[in-house]
Amino acid sequence: MNRNSEQNAQMVKVIILVRVREGILDPQGQAVLQVLHDMGENEVREVRIGKIVEILLPQWVASSGKIESWCSGFLANPLVESFEIQSVEPASRPPVSA
Amino acid sequence: MNRNSEQNAQMVKVIILVRVREGILDPQGQAVLQVLHDMGENEVREVRIGKIVEILLPQWVASSGKIESWCSGFLANPLVESFEIQSVEPASRPPVSA
Repeated sequence: MNRNSEQNAQMVKVIILVRVREGILDPQGQAVLQVLHDMGENEVREVRIGKIVEILLPQWVASSGKIESWCSGFLANPLVESFEIQSVEPASRPPVSA
Repeated sequence: MNRNSEQNAQMVKVIILVRVREGILDPQGQAVLQVLHDMGENEVREVRIGKIVEILLPQWVASSGKIESWCSGFLANPLVESFEIQSVEPASRPPVSA
């Protein structure tokens, strides 16, 4: 096993935010902005829509640096999106017993 | 005008997280989980994918309670999604002059 302690086997929830980069057109956000303007909410200046990815995995995998490579590899498109690992926190639910 | 002060006219960025509810199937998350398992990352237990919505608007609109109604009305589908207003913070960029 590639784990050193009970703590490393602890399940954690990693929260990743994936956003369309500044200056890149965001059609989904534009559509929502248009809906708001059509409703008369003309004070709304901008809407941007991205993704939140929540991954449940053991602490030792979260600490391995793999998540960054998953983000740049397939969770985000680095050409048009940026990503941010917002938090890594203990999972609230107990691990499922095999 | 419906604003009382310079502070109310200040632009703020509201960040809203929209998640697929617990117990509701999340096909996009399932697809990413399958990719990870195909890569041999069998320790990954679960992946859920939601939306992050960032709205730039004046403080007085953000304080009006409208955002909650936009969330339940069209930003999230209350049957299958939950929403959370994560933060309301001063916008970093200066307002565009007309």
